[in-house]
Amino acid sequence: MKSKKNLKTIAFDADDTLWVNDAFFNEAEQKLEELIRPYLGAGFLTEQLYQMEIRNLAIFGYGVKGFILSMIETAIEITSEQIKGSEIQQVIEIGKTMLKQPIALLREVHETILHLEQDYELMIITKGDLFDQESKIARSELAEHFQHIEIVSEKNEASYLNILKKYEIDSEQFLMVGNSLKSDILPVINLGGHAVHIPAETTWQHDQVSEAEREAMRYHELKRMGQLPELLARHFQEVGKTED
Amino acid sequence: MKSKKNLKTIAFDADDTLWVNDAFFNEAEQKLEELIRPYLGAGFLTEQLYQMEIRNLAIFGYGVKGFILSMIETAIEITSEQIKGSEIQQVIEIGKTMLKQPIALLREVHETILHLEQDYELMIITKGDLFDQESKIARSELAEHFQHIEIVSEKNEASYLNILKKYEIDSEQFLMVGNSLKSDILPVINLGGHAVHIPAETTWQHDQVSEAEREAMRYHELKRMGQLPELLARHFQEVGKTED
Repeated sequence: MKSKKNLKTIAFDADDTLWVNDAFFNEAEQKLEELIRPYLGAGFLTEQLYQMEIRNLAIFGYGVKGFILSMIETAIEITSEQIKGSEIQQVIEIGKTMLKQPIALLREVHETILHLEQDYELMIITKGDLFDQESKIARSELAEHFQHIEIVSEKNEASYLNILKKYEIDSEQFLMVGNSLKSDILPVINLGGHAVHIPAETTWQHDQVSEAEREAMRYHELKRMGQLPELLARHFQEVGKTED
Repeated sequence: MKSKKNLKTIAFDADDTLWVNDAFFNEAEQKLEELIRPYLGAGFLTEQLYQMEIRNLAIFGYGVKGFILSMIETAIEITSEQIKGSEIQQVIEIGKTMLKQPIALLREVHETILHLEQDYELMIITKGDLFDQESKIARSELAEHFQHIEIVSEKNEASYLNILKKYEIDSEQFLMVGNSLKSDILPVINLGGHAVHIPAETTWQHDQVSEAEREAMRYHELKRMGQLPELLARHFQEVGKTED
């Protein structure tokens, strides 16, 4: 009991932590590949699309709208500008479908949130497109369970520090749950906070961290969201929602 | 002196209040019109583009990336899908130019901010694309003068109330400065706050309020940012930055 750490606030990443996300990007990529197959020959779409996304990241940031524009540019590039207007319109429709996708919560998310909100202050911290993320949070019907919702353009030490300061949260009483070592775990650990990694089945290339970084870190890893309450009970002592 | 109101926090809208914005959208529209002129015949681009933006607003939200996608869709529609891949690429380049545009501060903005930060807590409250707005604020080199920067997907009573609560600001001690009656003035007045309208030379159709709404409101109107300190001195008494 003596070694248990005080904990007040638990923040969750959203995409691929609370609900399915990557799968919809992969599905969109497959649809794009089908669409431009007649032009594709022996070429590979995945690598070219990824390179285009990386090239565009500095100007578009994360999110579906930038992804749609990268799909369009990739399609133009791969087809040597031969792609037709009607096909570009189909690419836009693939993207619009992503933006209207019903939210599919990952397993055990709903019951875990209901359980934890009794003892902890819960937050969502997610990166990406403001409008799209707000829309997804609304469609998830989870919003009421979270005290604070923060949508940031980049998840790094500076952005976490900014959030901790804003809500006057002590990093030692803060725990982040997410699927990305790079975005959810590393920066929080570096700020003296706690972190639980729940890897997604698919992890985007860009989100991977090096072996060296991994070794230097101390964090918990779980297979499923439903294991979280037990892990918390074992290692942490809740400070209480209403106290400071 | 007795009738002066206490004031602690001044928040500024960004686009077309601190810096030029609409002009870049108009410029992009002109470039698009030149590009598709061969297909355009006697048609009108402006109205079709505006209708497309309105149709897409619910799915893309505000911001340049959604505007680029609306430009592409409009071009496909107007050309009856005859537009070429190379021309679509040019539309994307028009959009990328907007995203990299150097920031042009409106006149008297810089000196007014320097003046007011001595006595008031300053904020930016702007709507639009998170990534693009953050990039513009960084490029403006004004960030250091503002205590808080809030980027929201929609400016309405709910979003202002959320901000006032988060920073524990009394609406009676809060003043919003902006060019849009609908986004910057109306919701703040309705919450019991103060507002100063500085109309832009061009105001987007969507931002206009009805005559009836206008009559029901009480707010100050200025022609130039440089008139703000004098208006404040006449009507308000600063509470002091560090006090609560």
